[in-house]
Amino acid sequence: MSIITILGAGAMGSGLCTPVRNAGWEVRLWGTWLDDHLIDACEAGKPHPRTNVPLAKGVKLFRAAQLEKALDGADVVVMSVASVGVPKITEMALEGISKAKALWLTSKGFCPNNEGKIQLLPEAIRTIAKQKGISLPPIVAIAGPVKANECAEGKPTATIFGCKDLEVSRKYAREARTDVYCIEATDDETGVEICAPMKNVYAIALGIADGLEEGTGFPHHNLKAATFNRAVKEMSLLGQALGAKAETAFGLPGVGDLEVTGLSGRNKVYGVRIGRGETAKDALAEMDRLEQTVEGVPAAGLASTLVEQSAPQLKEELTLLKAVNEILSGTERPVVKVISDAVLPKMP
Amino acid sequence: MSIITILGAGAMGSGLCTPVRNAGWEVRLWGTWLDDHLIDACEAGKPHPRTNVPLAKGVKLFRAAQLEKALDGADVVVMSVASVGVPKITEMALEGISKAKALWLTSKGFCPNNEGKIQLLPEAIRTIAKQKGISLPPIVAIAGPVKANECAEGKPTATIFGCKDLEVSRKYAREARTDVYCIEATDDETGVEICAPMKNVYAIALGIADGLEEGTGFPHHNLKAATFNRAVKEMSLLGQALGAKAETAFGLPGVGDLEVTGLSGRNKVYGVRIGRGETAKDALAEMDRLEQTVEGVPAAGLASTLVEQSAPQLKEELTLLKAVNEILSGTERPVVKVISDAVLPKMP
Repeated sequence: MSIITILGAGAMGSGLCTPVRNAGWEVRLWGTWLDDHLIDACEAGKPHPRTNVPLAKGVKLFRAAQLEKALDGADVVVMSVASVGVPKITEMALEGISKAKALWLTSKGFCPNNEGKIQLLPEAIRTIAKQKGISLPPIVAIAGPVKANECAEGKPTATIFGCKDLEVSRKYAREARTDVYCIEATDDETGVEICAPMKNVYAIALGIADGLEEGTGFPHHNLKAATFNRAVKEMSLLGQALGAKAETAFGLPGVGDLEVTGLSGRNKVYGVRIGRGETAKDALAEMDRLEQTVEGVPAAGLASTLVEQSAPQLKEELTLLKAVNEILSGTERPVVKVISDAVLPKMP
Repeated sequence: MSIITILGAGAMGSGLCTPVRNAGWEVRLWGTWLDDHLIDACEAGKPHPRTNVPLAKGVKLFRAAQLEKALDGADVVVMSVASVGVPKITEMALEGISKAKALWLTSKGFCPNNEGKIQLLPEAIRTIAKQKGISLPPIVAIAGPVKANECAEGKPTATIFGCKDLEVSRKYAREARTDVYCIEATDDETGVEICAPMKNVYAIALGIADGLEEGTGFPHHNLKAATFNRAVKEMSLLGQALGAKAETAFGLPGVGDLEVTGLSGRNKVYGVRIGRGETAKDALAEMDRLEQTVEGVPAAGLASTLVEQSAPQLKEELTLLKAVNEILSGTERPVVKVISDAVLPKMP
């Protein structure tokens, strides 16, 4: 029985326990120093506070101080903390990770290094390891349309594993697969990593289109569909500029994940508020008050910096990314106009 | 001022009047013998019964008997009747069409010829013209995420014009464009024509995934997203087998139109009924009783025949099309299982 140690006991970390446990792995779930209340609930057999679903049976729980024990003998380590915590947890777990056969990555986001350069998370992790002179096993980027609560509940779920070594993606896509958790394999690590944070940015725009119905009394479904279409196109363009395959954005990490993110979730809800007439600033303050983190907001700014640094030829071309940033910074123009100008086809 | 004659005074025909009128065309709207009540409402200045939006100002109305007059001197003729009526209206209007500079086509569907061979509508129209020895102007296939009521209302809308002669697509994409009705141009007539009926089939599957929440008490968003992803993939595969470009399904006619169709509309509503537990047969009877035509139902059967005739190598590969047909024919298996098996990734 292979051993998998999941670092981070939040929604995705705990949700992933269900399929890997059902696939026959020994599963260890390690909580950070911020996760004690989550571990408490799991230990007491209560539903996990973030997914509302009890943890899969037989998962071994570890608290912050037990990191070394949690990692001891792990075949696979999964980085599953919030993206902002990835550098710190990587440093703490580096020795255990280096002894594993693979590092899986469900954390998603853009990570500025000390010089302000925006990196994707695998690059950030590799940089840290290199600085410490420690060699890493292959990284497997995990993405696709996976709401953690449904994954935890064992509902049908499609996901994708992206590792530069396709044989490694395939191996784990087979070994972690269950009847209801089914995994595509790709070698396009970059494509997978780009789509995940970008879809949060674009989900805000989809929410805005939804909110316009409430704000104006008339649906804007055509605009929402054009926005969806444009978002997919821009994920593909940005991915390609950074070395990804065009098709990755047209599959589970792009089209699929944008579908599920635009259907519900906090980025969409935040967009709806703006669409119905709140200012971006007021809407964010209200989300903060409700303790609803809107990942797409910082991601939009970081994406814009990433484009300037690493794909400057796309600066004017990613019109929807630009539009979202214009709206977030408090535009004077009506939001329907800002989105329309960004997503409707240009004169051919 | 160019003259455009729209054949068919239903939702799409009347909706299209708004942008072409605003783009400065002389617009004539001709109603078939089934459309008298629609023309009555428009003449009385009431909202159009199908879109709930008054017809654009300055549109000239023609009744069934005035076809010749409606076509006289038309630069562009638009076929905008239900797909089942296309052969008949083509025959009736053939002379007028032959004198125009282009035939636009908003009707969408599969059209069996007299030998039972399934044709796309442009092919069906060309076959009829050839039989009569009459030559046709270029055909411009029109598709994309366009709900007619929003188009009529002047809400922001993206669409795509597909003509084998790209210069013709481009010309009309420029000439019919307004600030809010914006048109992409492509030479992929086949790609555009394939996506439109197929998205109705796949919208049933999206509806089923939605309905599962009501039927089981638990959302199936991951499954819905995987279904969306699979539908896009299958539209691309089928298109390519018939000579289309892969990318067309990843753009407005595929991803975009599926988004808007899966968001609302009768195919989706029908799917929801099945997802929550009604049999396909009972659900269809209820839709019939409510006078709600579900275009995806006949399209699913015709698509399956089309695949057998023209793309037999895809027969087993289009798993979601197969699943929808299995469900429509009254499967014994739980629908969640039928859809899951069709859309979740296979063992890599």
